[in-house]
Amino acid sequence: MAPEQEAARGWEWRIRVSDVSSKVLAPKEGPICKLLLGVKALIVGLFLKLSNFLKKAWELASSDPRKAVHGMKVGLALTAVSLFYYIRPLYDGVGGNAMWAVMTVVVVFEGIVGATLYKCLNRMLATFLAGALGVGVHLLAKQSGEKFEHLIMGVALFIFASGATFSRFIPSVKSRFEYGATTFVLTFSLVSISDFRVDKLFDLAQQRLSTIIVGTLICILISMFICPIWAGQELYTTITNNMDKLANSLDGCVAEYFSGNEEGTRKGSEKTLLGYKCVLSSKASEESMANFARWEPAHGRFHFRHPWQQYVKVGAEMRSCAYCIEALNGCINSENKAPDRLKKRLSNICLEVSSNSSGVIKELGIVVTTMKKSSSIDFLVKQMKSAVQDLQTDIKSLPSLIIPQPLPETGNPQDKKTEANSTEVPSVMEMIPLLTLTSLLIEIASRIERIVSAVEELADIAQFQPVTDEKTTELKPDYKIAKDQNKEDETLQRV
Amino acid sequence: MAPEQEAARGWEWRIRVSDVSSKVLAPKEGPICKLLLGVKALIVGLFLKLSNFLKKAWELASSDPRKAVHGMKVGLALTAVSLFYYIRPLYDGVGGNAMWAVMTVVVVFEGIVGATLYKCLNRMLATFLAGALGVGVHLLAKQSGEKFEHLIMGVALFIFASGATFSRFIPSVKSRFEYGATTFVLTFSLVSISDFRVDKLFDLAQQRLSTIIVGTLICILISMFICPIWAGQELYTTITNNMDKLANSLDGCVAEYFSGNEEGTRKGSEKTLLGYKCVLSSKASEESMANFARWEPAHGRFHFRHPWQQYVKVGAEMRSCAYCIEALNGCINSENKAPDRLKKRLSNICLEVSSNSSGVIKELGIVVTTMKKSSSIDFLVKQMKSAVQDLQTDIKSLPSLIIPQPLPETGNPQDKKTEANSTEVPSVMEMIPLLTLTSLLIEIASRIERIVSAVEELADIAQFQPVTDEKTTELKPDYKIAKDQNKEDETLQRV
Repeated sequence: MAPEQEAARGWEWRIRVSDVSSKVLAPKEGPICKLLLGVKALIVGLFLKLSNFLKKAWELASSDPRKAVHGMKVGLALTAVSLFYYIRPLYDGVGGNAMWAVMTVVVVFEGIVGATLYKCLNRMLATFLAGALGVGVHLLAKQSGEKFEHLIMGVALFIFASGATFSRFIPSVKSRFEYGATTFVLTFSLVSISDFRVDKLFDLAQQRLSTIIVGTLICILISMFICPIWAGQELYTTITNNMDKLANSLDGCVAEYFSGNEEGTRKGSEKTLLGYKCVLSSKASEESMANFARWEPAHGRFHFRHPWQQYVKVGAEMRSCAYCIEALNGCINSENKAPDRLKKRLSNICLEVSSNSSGVIKELGIVVTTMKKSSSIDFLVKQMKSAVQDLQTDIKSLPSLIIPQPLPETGNPQDKKTEANSTEVPSVMEMIPLLTLTSLLIEIASRIERIVSAVEELADIAQFQPVTDEKTTELKPDYKIAKDQNKEDETLQRV
Repeated sequence: MAPEQEAARGWEWRIRVSDVSSKVLAPKEGPICKLLLGVKALIVGLFLKLSNFLKKAWELASSDPRKAVHGMKVGLALTAVSLFYYIRPLYDGVGGNAMWAVMTVVVVFEGIVGATLYKCLNRMLATFLAGALGVGVHLLAKQSGEKFEHLIMGVALFIFASGATFSRFIPSVKSRFEYGATTFVLTFSLVSISDFRVDKLFDLAQQRLSTIIVGTLICILISMFICPIWAGQELYTTITNNMDKLANSLDGCVAEYFSGNEEGTRKGSEKTLLGYKCVLSSKASEESMANFARWEPAHGRFHFRHPWQQYVKVGAEMRSCAYCIEALNGCINSENKAPDRLKKRLSNICLEVSSNSSGVIKELGIVVTTMKKSSSIDFLVKQMKSAVQDLQTDIKSLPSLIIPQPLPETGNPQDKKTEANSTEVPSVMEMIPLLTLTSLLIEIASRIERIVSAVEELADIAQFQPVTDEKTTELKPDYKIAKDQNKEDETLQRV
């Protein structure tokens, strides 16, 4: 049986061999070709992706050079720190200490001065606190003998690390000391695991402190004196730009509705019309800028402790106004069109309300931009209110328009009604978009009043001075140009 | 002249002395008392502040225990790492290496699993890349002689640090590799300033790598297996909760308008009415959750690469709907009140539109919650559309209401008009809030259709299965309870 099996296996084996070789031989050139083609496609694909990436990077850098400048500032700070330690080999040469300075620079340097200062101060405070606490706990633990030392250190580490991490969620800590809490945990853990000798303690502390100070100083100097980007200035620019956008959107939407909805015009001015969308989504950035701005020293025309939080309030009121413009934009694009006759009748007064409203917003923009109390704002608000009143009066007079004029001859009353319905009376359905527009315009005007009071509060807290007439006209164009140049491109990105 | 001056000075000096002492002596007891009082006030103040702070912390911890749990997880991870190095003194004992593991834990550990994974993977990738590149540049620089070494290293550091920092602003890098870019800069700078010997290079690399892996592993394990908070689950919960809130707000607003505006009822259900405000401000958190969720492995009912970005789209459509509810809420609170007769006439149909609309949103909520395609959504949408049609028809029938019924006797036409105006015809002004409400309801219904198509797209991409009837009813209550428990408290904070 065995030889038979052997023979059978041999046979089988021989068959399999020929089988395999035939299978392998036939498509042998296929895979290699495929592989080569695949590699070629991969290389071309990678090359295309890379060139695409570089193109995008170049576009970004040219549209907002400040981002490229920030990159170079970080490079400069790091090179400065490392050269400082190359040239002056302090203490134990280029080693552990230089590392801390470099780490400080990498972790602390931010694009915005306020953010850098916030991190620097948090880091210094937290390092000092955690260092002192850590050393204290360490000494305490050492006195309780070898056995309990690790236990005590472990428990202390757990308690302090948990507590500090949890404290980051408490709103008052979160807005000012979140980074400090992280640094506290880091420093405390490092001190608690390091096995230092008490006699070398002060040397160590002094070295660590000096390196952190070197790193921090270089960061602060470069961040503040080479093309600085101030959070306060950014917040201020965002608010004033958004005011312009809001005003232009409002004007544009209403004008577009009454001018007849030509596709061409709409597309041309799409950017202006949709400017309010920036206001809708600016909450997070405004709040973080206000948080950073509080760490910044006096700069430009802002003193230390300028009431930045009030700008956030102004921004919130603007957003509430932008919601209404969103709804307005929606109802303008709805399918129901009001009859032209009715549109014409209300067109002038609606345009007046919208231009008066946007005039108020623009004036508020000037108040915030020039930081001078406006002499004309009360007048403009009064004008806006009276336009709203006129609009309401005009609408009140509408029933006489809807009710058919009584015919001179007295015919069959039934006939009269039919005729009136078919020719004279616009259905309420047709009137709805127009009436919604007016209703939203009235609501927008009342929300603009809330922006006015927020800005007036800002003017009081920040002690804006009353404006003298010739100054406003002189200042306005300059500020406008500077503002627009700064923000125009970023806005494009955001929209 | 000199002695005279001397004398004069002496005299002056004496006078000043007496002057000063008299000034100091008179209120001497005052300042001490004041000081003591001040110190007392300070201590009491500090104590009050501290107790207030602790109270707030306690409230936060009890309202959202997950935050306290996160704190403890960080404590646990740090203690674990430090004990690991205490117990097994690897390589050169507890020293430089343990430091890197601790640092990794502190920097990488986040409350959300996706964020931890994102940071871990970024850190490992960036460390590896920067390390290899740094060593390469170092070796190259060493070959060009002592003189040029520092120069080459400095230039390389500047170029790579600038480039990597700038790359953080490029959108595609920002959303996935921002943290990696920071780590790259850090590692590259550390390698370029360290003065290593080539023969020890691989030892060093191996040690550094092993410590980072230990730190990273501990982070990932603790983050994923002890009370994990998944970004995907959070995003999913936010979206489904927001759908409920949107539906309730819409229902509540319309119901409140037609039920008559009693102050008591309004205040009681204020929370429900203003639920839509959560939707207005959830953009940033939804986007960051979606970014983190893509790093997460399969968890719960979500597989790896679940289409998280589609949830963001659904969220955006919901926000566009919330803007309209904002405007609706504004126009409901406006001063013009529609006459009761007119309100009553439209009340039923408006309530029907709103309840149908909110029904659609609630059904969408169930679709997303159960991850099953709904069998009734098409029917519900049809119902909503037909209710909108009915509303439009009802409004179209309104002119007959406004136009006075022709009087039976034919009197003076002038008289008829006056009478009609004063008694029968509600002025358009009075009708405006009601008409705006209907118009916004119609707009909201059309925006809800956009949410429907976004959810349907999600159901297609994520391959939701059709629902079987008994399953829905079984699953619904469970999910609801779990969802509500998770998010209810956080919502309270946010509102």
